[in-house]
Amino acid sequence: MASKGEKTRADIVDSARKLFYKHGYDGTSFSQIVDATGLFRGNIYHYFKTKDDILEAVVERYLDDYRALLMQWEQASSDPRVRLHAFVGMVAGHKAELVEYGCPIGSLNTELGKERRELQQVARALFELLENWLAARFIELGYADEAASLALHLLGRAQGIAVISHVYRDQSFLERETGQLAAWIDQLKPPARRARRAQSHPA
Amino acid sequence: MASKGEKTRADIVDSARKLFYKHGYDGTSFSQIVDATGLFRGNIYHYFKTKDDILEAVVERYLDDYRALLMQWEQASSDPRVRLHAFVGMVAGHKAELVEYGCPIGSLNTELGKERRELQQVARALFELLENWLAARFIELGYADEAASLALHLLGRAQGIAVISHVYRDQSFLERETGQLAAWIDQLKPPARRARRAQSHPA
Repeated sequence: MASKGEKTRADIVDSARKLFYKHGYDGTSFSQIVDATGLFRGNIYHYFKTKDDILEAVVERYLDDYRALLMQWEQASSDPRVRLHAFVGMVAGHKAELVEYGCPIGSLNTELGKERRELQQVARALFELLENWLAARFIELGYADEAASLALHLLGRAQGIAVISHVYRDQSFLERETGQLAAWIDQLKPPARRARRAQSHPA
Repeated sequence: MASKGEKTRADIVDSARKLFYKHGYDGTSFSQIVDATGLFRGNIYHYFKTKDDILEAVVERYLDDYRALLMQWEQASSDPRVRLHAFVGMVAGHKAELVEYGCPIGSLNTELGKERRELQQVARALFELLENWLAARFIELGYADEAASLALHLLGRAQGIAVISHVYRDQSFLERETGQLAAWIDQLKPPARRARRAQSHPA
């Protein structure tokens, strides 16, 4: 059971995560985080000295949540295609928030990537977690050599969908494009299978 | 010839555009813009009262630049495929800045789209300009019915490429993916041509 201190710390991180997502990192002040938690400023300093410290904890929280989600997807099916569909389904399933605020990890990295590269190094871990997980699925599918580039391709497609649907507040674009991405997953032909087919049907 | 006042105004807009691109909109203060121009604060107020006013002028400047670029591309070739390649070529040609700061119009819209929707409505015009231009090219290619969704698809792909190459500072990803986008343009088969082919090769 979490102690009172752990609970308070978790509440601060949770408030900050929501504020960063809704207003951006620069758009959120330390004072706004203090206000949102309902704590005295002195109490927050007990846990975090700076907004940057809070950001690191927010990234940790995201990582924990994504890890739990990825594990769920792995447990739900051993079929790599079904697992990849779960990733696309996550994008489609969050369309309301994506249209309203953009991708939480994409918009955070885009903002921090400008002139806060040290912080963005921290936030990039979120992409790396997803990238590695996706790459493992492409390896399972038989794409040993192209797994890394396919994983980044899929992440990029998802980011593009998030950006455009956010810019235009367009859920139907998001639905159409995630549908195309699902179709792309379905038509992937692992190299091994292609090779077998080529052998069984020689030219 | 531009008057001294017009020149000063243009300098302010130019300084602000660079700062917004490098630091983000929230990451740039009015004072930083004042400092960058080397003018007295009072002089700037003669042209702009608020940072939001400057942003509107920055968007106008981007629009002017993009319009000039699109016109160049149209004059360079009447082939819609070549025109679409010019768009992808622009992405590939700016890889150094994209890897360093992300897409100027994408990152701006992503930031403003959070809780500054009135300002993002202004900045969205940049996407709409490109969207309409790309859609016109898809119509030229024979995709009358799908032109709008193809234009948004291409914009989304370009945005995804920009986000990932920025997050990872990865120029080789950008090169690989813009190459794939160019190949996608090359393999587009306009519905009209498909229909003709179907007629000349009946099943």
